[in-house]
Amino acid sequence: MNFRGAHILSVAQFARQDVDKIFRVADRMEPFAHRRQVSKALDGAILGNMFFEPSTRTRVSFGCAFNLLGGHVRETADVDSSSIAKGESLFDTARVISGYSDVIVMRHPRVGSVAEFAEASRVPVINGGDGSNEHPSQALLDLYTIKKELQSQGGTIDGMSIAMVGDLKHGRTVHSLSQLLLLYKDIRFTLISPRELSMPADIVDRLRQEGHEVAETDDMESGLQDNDTVYLTRIQEERFTTKLEADIYRGRFRLNQAIYTRHCQPNTVIMHPLPRDSRAEANELDADLNQHPNLAIFRQTDNGVLVRMALFALILDVEDKIADTAADVGWYTERRF
Amino acid sequence: MNFRGAHILSVAQFARQDVDKIFRVADRMEPFAHRRQVSKALDGAILGNMFFEPSTRTRVSFGCAFNLLGGHVRETADVDSSSIAKGESLFDTARVISGYSDVIVMRHPRVGSVAEFAEASRVPVINGGDGSNEHPSQALLDLYTIKKELQSQGGTIDGMSIAMVGDLKHGRTVHSLSQLLLLYKDIRFTLISPRELSMPADIVDRLRQEGHEVAETDDMESGLQDNDTVYLTRIQEERFTTKLEADIYRGRFRLNQAIYTRHCQPNTVIMHPLPRDSRAEANELDADLNQHPNLAIFRQTDNGVLVRMALFALILDVEDKIADTAADVGWYTERRF
Amino acid sequence: MNFRGAHILSVAQFARQDVDKIFRVADRMEPFAHRRQVSKALDGAILGNMFFEPSTRTRVSFGCAFNLLGGHVRETADVDSSSIAKGESLFDTARVISGYSDVIVMRHPRVGSVAEFAEASRVPVINGGDGSNEHPSQALLDLYTIKKELQSQGGTIDGMSIAMVGDLKHGRTVHSLSQLLLLYKDIRFTLISPRELSMPADIVDRLRQEGHEVAETDDMESGLQDNDTVYLTRIQEERFTTKLEADIYRGRFRLNQAIYTRHCQPNTVIMHPLPRDSRAEANELDADLNQHPNLAIFRQTDNGVLVRMALFALILDVEDKIADTAADVGWYTERRF
Repeated sequence: MNFRGAHILSVAQFARQDVDKIFRVADRMEPFAHRRQVSKALDGAILGNMFFEPSTRTRVSFGCAFNLLGGHVRETADVDSSSIAKGESLFDTARVISGYSDVIVMRHPRVGSVAEFAEASRVPVINGGDGSNEHPSQALLDLYTIKKELQSQGGTIDGMSIAMVGDLKHGRTVHSLSQLLLLYKDIRFTLISPRELSMPADIVDRLRQEGHEVAETDDMESGLQDNDTVYLTRIQEERFTTKLEADIYRGRFRLNQAIYTRHCQPNTVIMHPLPRDSRAEANELDADLNQHPNLAIFRQTDNGVLVRMALFALILDVEDKIADTAADVGWYTERRF
Repeated sequence: MNFRGAHILSVAQFARQDVDKIFRVADRMEPFAHRRQVSKALDGAILGNMFFEPSTRTRVSFGCAFNLLGGHVRETADVDSSSIAKGESLFDTARVISGYSDVIVMRHPRVGSVAEFAEASRVPVINGGDGSNEHPSQALLDLYTIKKELQSQGGTIDGMSIAMVGDLKHGRTVHSLSQLLLLYKDIRFTLISPRELSMPADIVDRLRQEGHEVAETDDMESGLQDNDTVYLTRIQEERFTTKLEADIYRGRFRLNQAIYTRHCQPNTVIMHPLPRDSRAEANELDADLNQHPNLAIFRQTDNGVLVRMALFALILDVEDKIADTAADVGWYTERRF
Repeated sequence: MNFRGAHILSVAQFARQDVDKIFRVADRMEPFAHRRQVSKALDGAILGNMFFEPSTRTRVSFGCAFNLLGGHVRETADVDSSSIAKGESLFDTARVISGYSDVIVMRHPRVGSVAEFAEASRVPVINGGDGSNEHPSQALLDLYTIKKELQSQGGTIDGMSIAMVGDLKHGRTVHSLSQLLLLYKDIRFTLISPRELSMPADIVDRLRQEGHEVAETDDMESGLQDNDTVYLTRIQEERFTTKLEADIYRGRFRLNQAIYTRHCQPNTVIMHPLPRDSRAEANELDADLNQHPNLAIFRQTDNGVLVRMALFALILDVEDKIADTAADVGWYTERRF
């Protein structure tokens, strides 16, 4: 695809070479995200960071990525209750807001809303999450993390094995990540979930059609064996009819240090899209793994900044100007790890 | 008036030459708003964008205008419930906040609050809307749009004809626009509204005293004839005692393609302060006109950025420094229209 | 202490020389805060301004201080209801958010939360207030104001006299200020409060152990005599079980022009941490003193910007680079006083 001026609405729009390109640009963003250099590539540009559903982390991640390229961020952090109450259409909102910025990130609770918004927008739009539908930058940062983690072990995405665990029915991230993995070869999937929360059949079918190996199970202990990566998810309580129904499944699949040692390979990468539910009754990924070197969950969110910088750079066509505008950083930038 | 360091609280403070000056400066803002050039005129300055009432579009428009001049924006997007609950006076809020910024935009639900705030502020204040009272930058952008639209047809504000349609009793924008039009000559007004929602008598009287022609009617079809501009408004539901009362009038006056073709001149400019109410029961301006070349509603919001940039430039006295600090833009800036 | 990369969590972490250092750096921030010069020392740096409890003034003050040093500000202005509802731990929030910024300011309603957050953060954290516990930048700006006010009268903190008035039991600011004053010598404290709202005994004891003179009284008129500074506080209604209980004390101690003239020294400095409660039933500091030259309450909030700039400069180790990156200001910067 041609990224210049493009909307980023769905992982379905990417070919493998597109993903490769995003990742190559993301790699080059590291000196800026790690505060070794400052970029002015987007000095004077404005991001419209429109979050019509609360999401502190994703909102701040996009805003930070734009600042790191030198741009300004204008934003909204909540439902636009005033406009909705006054009956404004998404078409009108898009026409108006797109007159204020160079690129827009939009999150909205309704499925399809961001595509509808992008249709009317005069500037490029990135989908920051439209309900249970899509959140493409999350899928990209997940895949980018898998690539980097496996690379550091001498592995590749092609030929890898991955266990996905938890609420695979409602989890937007495992759906999108699976769709991106369709672009790669010979992956072995182990899908671990309660039967009632299993991965939608059409996704499983497509994975198999593309030649991947898919096993489904509700037995976590056997499922965890022999995987390069284990991707855990939270019970998506907000997608259930009642909290009671969600409670049935909460806490059923848990990974902690003891289970990891007993059932996983010694270097299995541990991932989670966050937030993880750390309450005692859920606790799908125990804090006793917090210091584990293969726990990649915070590298995931760090990589999110790189991937979002790459998307901005590609859409606004400055990926080749970033090095020219780079300057050294003069303040304290050590990080505690 | 002397703009340097001035508060902008009401359209009543402008003479015709002041409006002309704002519009001349607004014209010069186009290369920046259209992202052909970047300005650093306010590099390091801080806008206090204080919205004590939700208003995503106006808030983002002011913030964007300030960013386009190179400045930082600090803001609040909601009622300051904590301070109000603790009994803080507007005087104190103004003294404190004005120590943080170079200029303040303030929106507040109470009539007169912004003037009271400005009295105590140590820096210039722009009224971003104080309840049903004033919203001067909206009136300026409306008039600036009329001027540019008529100009492109070879016309002028002096001698033009305008129909104002809808809730003329509660509509803050039609009141303020009428007041600005007092500064011009020989305008023919057609005021189309339910009798109960007609334009306040004092405004009509003043228009006539200044030599303008004013006709009032509740018949839309005849009223639409022979106008250069038609300015539609929404039923201001929030100003009625009950939703039921508002429902009586909602949907009574509607403009769509068929009515436009039948009753308007072929090049009548269509305006609306937005948001327009697109729900079926209201729909005062139909989406079937969205592609019409004379639909100026999104040019209005675009012009809002120019007018707000001009106000900041004049108040902070940098209007003559903008060209000197201009640089070319290096990122993707094409716009879809 | 070594400020470079340090967390600022409590006034207890400062020795007298640390406070002196902060104040020396704060003095050098005046040309920037007063808009005579612009600094680029933190150009490209990002502040994560995380307010998980509403506080317009403190949030904007920190953001403005960072902008004045040239940095970007990413922020949240409200409880992160989504993450809390999803069961995210402070550890996870800290790991994630600290990947987005160079320094974090955090306010949170729970005592101890900011220290817990800082423990997991990979970047320096400043406590912007954790419930009834600590708000160190407020105590620093109070003390900095006392120092500057007394200095202009030829006085010093050592040997001064101060009356603290009002709700001394719940007032976080008087507790923290007292703790900082432990670092100085020979201070005479007059603590004026209802008996039920008197200063906690452990604070009084420590003051006396360090050689300070402490008198406690519930008689305001006698207590006001012979003080260099009087520090008024609001009844902290939100810390009482019921509003009714707070009402018993509200309005009991009031300072106005008449009382000041009758009972205070002619140059007693009047302070208040703000917001002051200006409702008739409370009104602990009357508006008839608003023009009094010794009313320092708005100089306090102005000084807050200087002190916060100093903290950022010290933590991020740019205090010696600020002069090098300074440029002249080209816009209107006169202030009304």
